[in-house]
Amino acid sequence: MTGWLEALERLSGSRAKAGLTRQLRPRPADDFVVDLAGNDYLGLSAHPSVVAAAASALAAYGLGATGSRLVRGSTDAHSLLEADVAAFLGFSSALVFSSGYLANLAAVRGATAVCDLIVSDAYNHASLIDGCKISGRRTVVAPHNDPTAVATILDAHPGQPAVVVTESVFSVDGDLADLATLHEVTSSRGALLLVDDAHAVGILGPGGAGGVAAAGLAGQPDVIVTATLSKSLGGAGGVVAAPEPFIRHLIDTGRTFIYDTALPPAVVAGVHAALQLTRDADDRRTVLTTRADQVVTRLTEAGFPVARPAAAVLSVLAPGPEAAVAWAADCRDRGVAVGCFRPPSTPDGSSRLRLTLNAGVPDEAFAHALDVIVECAP
Amino acid sequence: MTGWLEALERLSGSRAKAGLTRQLRPRPADDFVVDLAGNDYLGLSAHPSVVAAAASALAAYGLGATGSRLVRGSTDAHSLLEADVAAFLGFSSALVFSSGYLANLAAVRGATAVCDLIVSDAYNHASLIDGCKISGRRTVVAPHNDPTAVATILDAHPGQPAVVVTESVFSVDGDLADLATLHEVTSSRGALLLVDDAHAVGILGPGGAGGVAAAGLAGQPDVIVTATLSKSLGGAGGVVAAPEPFIRHLIDTGRTFIYDTALPPAVVAGVHAALQLTRDADDRRTVLTTRADQVVTRLTEAGFPVARPAAAVLSVLAPGPEAAVAWAADCRDRGVAVGCFRPPSTPDGSSRLRLTLNAGVPDEAFAHALDVIVECAP
Ligand SMILES: Cc1ncc(COP(=O)(O)O)c(C=O)c1O
Ligand SMILES: Cc1ncc(COP(=O)(O)O)c(C=O)c1O
Repeated sequence: MTGWLEALERLSGSRAKAGLTRQLRPRPADDFVVDLAGNDYLGLSAHPSVVAAAASALAAYGLGATGSRLVRGSTDAHSLLEADVAAFLGFSSALVFSSGYLANLAAVRGATAVCDLIVSDAYNHASLIDGCKISGRRTVVAPHNDPTAVATILDAHPGQPAVVVTESVFSVDGDLADLATLHEVTSSRGALLLVDDAHAVGILGPGGAGGVAAAGLAGQPDVIVTATLSKSLGGAGGVVAAPEPFIRHLIDTGRTFIYDTALPPAVVAGVHAALQLTRDADDRRTVLTTRADQVVTRLTEAGFPVARPAAAVLSVLAPGPEAAVAWAADCRDRGVAVGCFRPPSTPDGSSRLRLTLNAGVPDEAFAHALDVIVECAP
Repeated sequence: MTGWLEALERLSGSRAKAGLTRQLRPRPADDFVVDLAGNDYLGLSAHPSVVAAAASALAAYGLGATGSRLVRGSTDAHSLLEADVAAFLGFSSALVFSSGYLANLAAVRGATAVCDLIVSDAYNHASLIDGCKISGRRTVVAPHNDPTAVATILDAHPGQPAVVVTESVFSVDGDLADLATLHEVTSSRGALLLVDDAHAVGILGPGGAGGVAAAGLAGQPDVIVTATLSKSLGGAGGVVAAPEPFIRHLIDTGRTFIYDTALPPAVVAGVHAALQLTRDADDRRTVLTTRADQVVTRLTEAGFPVARPAAAVLSVLAPGPEAAVAWAADCRDRGVAVGCFRPPSTPDGSSRLRLTLNAGVPDEAFAHALDVIVECAP
């Protein structure tokens, strides 16, 4: 059977025509680019303490965890991180996964052990959507960031235990879910609230404890939080924080926990160091706040109205996919890395630049990068 | 809603009654245990060259990849590994994922872009089963390791492009799929063959190129291979190797590729060093072959008949889940780590010890470990 390769070529041809081909652009270690594309929001991924902690665990444990968490993969480094990340997020328990993606699959599927219905925000991340799918449970997609609509959906399914799934800061547009209102809606109706805090951890809330903490919901008995360890925390991996019985449920039954090799100890230790820095990183969070204002002012004045980012992510609309690609390419040629998001990576089907703020970028470089973005606009 | 916590406690109580509670046992860096449980088959996870390569990339790039592969996450380290791992496995192209789990989700779902039917081996790994589920495609489960049954299933669905999904060396029992016969069945019927080579890479085939290479199927235009980088290669991450149009398809559309943070450059570089060592590790593979014979002889003589492992994994039946847990605990108390697999981690619902071979364990320690296992038997 080689007909499949021709069929794939045809699919590829259609994507090319629609301007939807993607290209890997490997970067060297020293690419001297101003980073307005990555998720290293606090600039901690190359912080000397993070690198030193990772290097020391690498020397002590070797590279891989050598097994799944329940076989040989759990090290002291994992337990220490789990205890601290639970306390940081304000929950009794937390469980580390090898990625945020796999953490989300486990959390959503796990919730359906006791919930018959999932209500999922229309702009949710692919991993949450896949979590709904893999759970096999009835899923109703709610209009984006609309607690009233969620209430209507829940009221239309009386007697069905439900879990409402949302991000705190949404990954493409960077807007913030109205978590306090959403929690009033869920708690008054006996539903659970599952929040993916990936883009708010490290940035919002006291000591960077995240969007759930900022909304006063940390440790609530009907709230589950997930996050990645790869953005503000500068490493890789994922975490679920929740009341202890839910974490125990995931240890006993979570397929993406049980049947997956543990996160390497060196990554765990590096993330742990980043967590300690994050608590005391109010100075870096102030930089992000200032830059959020700067980027809105600069782009709006230049004729590109953008919403003020709730954390460190924002979107600038482009006229179409090709224009977005060209805009990003021109920026890159001038030494500025920006994200270029096209369908199916955009929730509304439009194409845009996605910009991120990184407290590690020097002030002048940041101001220059904004100039470049404006000058390269289509 | 706190009723959910009580519902979870009830589920937990039922698991406890059935002997199916799982417990995390974090290990220190220096646990001085003989490892017959992990997947570090070639003993490379703490090899000085692997650790040095990881340390050097850590210093150069920092800890995290800081973004998904299509945004900021692709580094030169990723490309170099992808080129070498493709050549190693004998395919034109390869793509690195952050885990074998996510690689399998992408590969199975990706195949269904051109296949309407999945035929999945009854003993397949959770990640392959989840890949079938998440694809939403019709899936027929075939009896374990039975090419004739696969042929019958394919013949019963004429005109439906199909993909047959199997492991090479199965992860619990350690038996080897009859890949050559299976490929005759698939190729003569125009079906694709997708093989998860996780437990054979590094061990079987020329230079440890894996079970697919050993069966003479490397680079076949109708074959897709997946593997984890966390077992013989001593690190973490996953890979899909296939004809180039399929890899391009995954770059453009693979959700677990696009929406997931890239594997940390330090892990990539460490795995790459392990790959280079693996090619020349015939001495280590000889150790594994000798030990496979040793373990069969020792256990069979002691009254525990075991099948000769095709690679480095084997299973010893236990009378029940509690007996398996007690057996493993007694071994651990005497300094020997063995795997304890109970439902739902066992394909046939039985409980057993799962033993693995590790070329890094000294000969005497290995012989002693076999004694301990026999002495602790129920
Ligand atoms: C909102 C959100 N959730 C989950 C993830 C997945 O996390 P990870 O990259 O650790 O798999 C991401 C991005 O990567 C994300 O943006
Ligand atoms: C057969 C098989 N496939 C896939 C995986 C998943 O790979 P990873 O641990 O890298 O997620 C494993 C084990 O972990 C496995 O045994």
